[in-house]
Amino acid sequence: MDNSRRKALTGIGGLALSATSTLLAAPVFSNEKVSSVPWEYKELDSNLVAARAYRGYHKHGCMYAVFEAIIGELADRFGTPYSTFPFEMMSYGASGVASWGTLCGTLNGAAAAIGLVSKNPRKLINELYIWSEETALPNVDVAILSSNNSNTPNPVKGVSSISGSVLCHIIVAKWCKKSKKGIDSYEKKQRCSQSAASVAKKTVELLNAELNGTFKTQYRFTQETKSCFKCHTGTTSVKNNSQGKMQCTTCHTNLTGIHNL
Amino acid sequence: MDNSRRKALTGIGGLALSATSTLLAAPVFSNEKVSSVPWEYKELDSNLVAARAYRGYHKHGCMYAVFEAIIGELADRFGTPYSTFPFEMMSYGASGVASWGTLCGTLNGAAAAIGLVSKNPRKLINELYIWSEETALPNVDVAILSSNNSNTPNPVKGVSSISGSVLCHIIVAKWCKKSKKGIDSYEKKQRCSQSAASVAKKTVELLNAELNGTFKTQYRFTQETKSCFKCHTGTTSVKNNSQGKMQCTTCHTNLTGIHNL
Repeated sequence: MDNSRRKALTGIGGLALSATSTLLAAPVFSNEKVSSVPWEYKELDSNLVAARAYRGYHKHGCMYAVFEAIIGELADRFGTPYSTFPFEMMSYGASGVASWGTLCGTLNGAAAAIGLVSKNPRKLINELYIWSEETALPNVDVAILSSNNSNTPNPVKGVSSISGSVLCHIIVAKWCKKSKKGIDSYEKKQRCSQSAASVAKKTVELLNAELNGTFKTQYRFTQETKSCFKCHTGTTSVKNNSQGKMQCTTCHTNLTGIHNL
Repeated sequence: MDNSRRKALTGIGGLALSATSTLLAAPVFSNEKVSSVPWEYKELDSNLVAARAYRGYHKHGCMYAVFEAIIGELADRFGTPYSTFPFEMMSYGASGVASWGTLCGTLNGAAAAIGLVSKNPRKLINELYIWSEETALPNVDVAILSSNNSNTPNPVKGVSSISGSVLCHIIVAKWCKKSKKGIDSYEKKQRCSQSAASVAKKTVELLNAELNGTFKTQYRFTQETKSCFKCHTGTTSVKNNSQGKMQCTTCHTNLTGIHNL
C-alpha cells in the first residue's frame, strides 16, 4: 500500500465490515477519515486546468469551475484522496454565492483549493487576489479553451477590464460599463467562464511555484491602500477599525480633508 | 451494508487491493468516490452546533467554525461520508478569506455547508443572508456556549450590531464603531466567535425546517433594495448591470437626482 493511500484511509473503524453485522441488519458505523490538510499538491499543467475550468463553469458556475479544475485534475491523475471530494457542493459560490455578488466565485474556489493543498495559503491567496485586482481579466488565450465538448460553448474573445476589486458585484459592474453588455448576456457568461480559466491558470502557476520552491511575491498593495492601513489596520494603528486588504479607494472614492491622499 | 455506506464507497477501483500489486511495488491507483451532492441531511440540535462553532472559531477561524460545527456534528453522529471531509481546508475563509475582509467567513462556511447538504441551497442562503443583514449579531445566549474546554475562552456577553451587510469589512467596521473596540481586541474575537455560533444555530434551524417540510421564507429584500433591482437587475431591466442581492444603500449612500429614493 503506498503511503498516500495508507494515509488516506486511516480512521476509527477503518474499512472493516463483518458479515454478522449485515445479517443482523444492525447499522454499521463507519468513520473513515482522509489525509490531514494540506493534501499533497502535485505539479499540474496550467493550460489543461484552465480549459477544464472553462468547461466546469458551464456545468456548475464559477466557484465550482476553478476548484474542480484544480482538485478534479489531481483526482483524475492521482485518484484518492482527491477523488473523494464532493465537488458539486462548490456550486454554492456561483456569482458571489447564490448570486449575492459578494466574493468572486472564481476567487472563492481558488482560495478553497489553495486552502486544501497549499502549505502557505495566505501567501498564495494574497498574491492571487492582488493580481486579480490589478489585471485586465479575462486574460487567457481562447485558443487553449477549445474543448471539442458539445456541452460547452465555443470560446469567443471579448472585452477585458481591470476591476480593482475581488468582489463579484464590482467586477461585473465595471465590465458591464466597459463592454456595454448586461449581466444576463451571452458575453457576460463568456467573460466569467474565461475569467474562471484565467484564475485557475494563475492559481496552478502559483501552486507549481510553491511546489518547486520558485515562488516569489510579485504583487503588492498599492501605495494608496498602504497609506490607509497606517491608521486603520494593525494593533499599533490609531483607529485599528478596518478589517481587510481590498483596494480601499475602489469604494472609498470621496476622499477629502485628512483623507485627501 | 446500509444504503448510505454503500453509496459512500462506490467508485472505479473501489476498495480492492491485491497482494500482488503490493509485492511488485506498483502504484495502486485508487479512485474512491463519495455520495453525490447533496449529502443526506439529518436533524441536529442547533444549540449543540452553536457551541461547537464557538469552540471551532478558536481553532481555525470563522469559516471553519460554522462549516465544521454542522458537518462535523453529522460526522461524529453518523460517520461516513461526513467524516471523510477535509475540514481544516475551511480555515482559508477566516476574516473574509485570508483576512481580506470580503464575504464574512461565518456566512461563507454556512453557505458551503448548505451547498453540501441542502436540496435547495439558494432558498436557504437567501434566507440566511437577509437575516444576517437585518439582525443584531451576535445574538446567541452565551449560557449555551460554556464548553468546559480549557482551550476555549469563556464567552463574555458584549455589544451586538446590525450591519446591513454580509461583507466582513463592513460588519466589523460597524461593530468597531458601536463598541469602540479595535479589530485586534479580545472583544472582537468574542464578537466573531459568538457570531459564528449565531450563524451556525440559524443555519441548523433552516436545515431542520427544510428537512421537516416546515421551511417558510421570513426575510425579504428591503423596499429600497427592490426599487434598485427594478432598473439594474434582471433581463427586463433598463440597465441590467448590477450583479448581487446585497443591501444597496449600505454602500451606495449618496443617492441624489433619479436615485433619490
